Amino acid sequence: MTKSTDGAVLDALFATIESRRGADPDTSYTAGLFAKGRGKICRKVGEEAVETVVAALAETPDRVAGESADLLYHLLVLWADAGVTPDRVWRELEKRRGTSGIDEKRNRKAS
Amino acid sequence: MTKSTDGAVLDALFATIESRRGADPDTSYTAGLFAKGRGKICRKVGEEAVETVVAALAETPDRVAGESADLLYHLLVLWADAGVTPDRVWRELEKRRGTSGIDEKRNRKAS
Amino acid sequence: MTKSTDGAVLDALFATIESRRGADPDTSYTAGLFAKGRGKICRKVGEEAVETVVAALAETPDRVAGESADLLYHLLVLWADAGVTPDRVWRELEKRRGTSGIDEKRNRKAS
Amino acid sequence: MTKSTDGAVLDALFATIESRRGADPDTSYTAGLFAKGRGKICRKVGEEAVETVVAALAETPDRVAGESADLLYHLLVLWADAGVTPDRVWRELEKRRGTSGIDEKRNRKAS
Repeated sequence: MTKSTDGAVLDALFATIESRRGADPDTSYTAGLFAKGRGKICRKVGEEAVETVVAALAETPDRVAGESADLLYHLLVLWADAGVTPDRVWRELEKRRGTSGIDEKRNRKAS
Repeated sequence: MTKSTDGAVLDALFATIESRRGADPDTSYTAGLFAKGRGKICRKVGEEAVETVVAALAETPDRVAGESADLLYHLLVLWADAGVTPDRVWRELEKRRGTSGIDEKRNRKAS
Repeated sequence: MTKSTDGAVLDALFATIESRRGADPDTSYTAGLFAKGRGKICRKVGEEAVETVVAALAETPDRVAGESADLLYHLLVLWADAGVTPDRVWRELEKRRGTSGIDEKRNRKAS
Repeated sequence: MTKSTDGAVLDALFATIESRRGADPDTSYTAGLFAKGRGKICRKVGEEAVETVVAALAETPDRVAGESADLLYHLLVLWADAGVTPDRVWRELEKRRGTSGIDEKRNRKAS
């Protein structure tokens, strides 16, 4: 009914993340990540990706959803830190959507 | 102007991915991933996460956007394979949004 | 002069790790990993691999050495948990050593 | 009987890797990695770590041994590229060996 459960939640989350840049690292986890720097943010993205993989191979769908949310959150922090807007990623994905979209692209990469 | 550049692209992409389940693995990269199984999909998620991290530390924002798109695409294939709908992940993220949302949750996890 | 600084340190470390299986998880970190199970050990291997990569791209050689040691330690715990002896891995590596060893194998895989 | 199956195989492999620096990237996979640069080497380390994790959770001990060998080979290439000698890593591991060695260090990090 509301937009809150479609993919637009990522755009809203990104705006929230951007708004935390100037916040106090002692009270905002997001501001703390920005303060610790790109290396720390990258470690979290990698760590949550591995946790998503382990959840998918050895745990439950609920754990996959939870770890995926953690991965997406940290990925958005990385985009903010690296100056990448979500729109830019959505456009990349748009290019790959549709039969020929994903599949031609992918087949080319794989070959 | 259209919704195609907001986060809803992920919901549309997920629907496309689901529709490939029965497709021919020889002509659809997505069907090929389903055919190779969960282990292969997980390897791709991990691989694209590392490529995103390397792009963020040593390459350009364009490369970060491109590798992030590859990561998201494979993550959606993993959700489809593991029986996780995007809605479930958006709800997890909703819970964490808002000042108290992300930050309380995260601080709790970090402590 | 002593063997302590050649690769044999891994064989000695593996023996130490094996000896911790029955230890108290409250006092032995290694016993704690075994008790938490394969998923936890895998998460640590993935996490330390990402930390090694971040150290190599954005930090110092000292950090690369330290994170590599953490990666190797957790990899050995994984071998112990999965019933893989170090000898089995050394034999795999032996097969690949020598010009033709590494390079033919690798070129075949890459092609 | 010979040393070839103990951990010293890593020291020998590292020497072989170092000797490939000047080789032709078209005929030596190792020289090709050096030519492609640190980012490529890091991607391979991350990729092989994920493959090791997937093998441990969903495949066989033989696959764990094989993927671990691939991981170690690429890790050694990374050490060579980053100016880290194996001795430096063995010394880090030595520091952590022994009951107090591993466990105190680890407990400190975990707390």
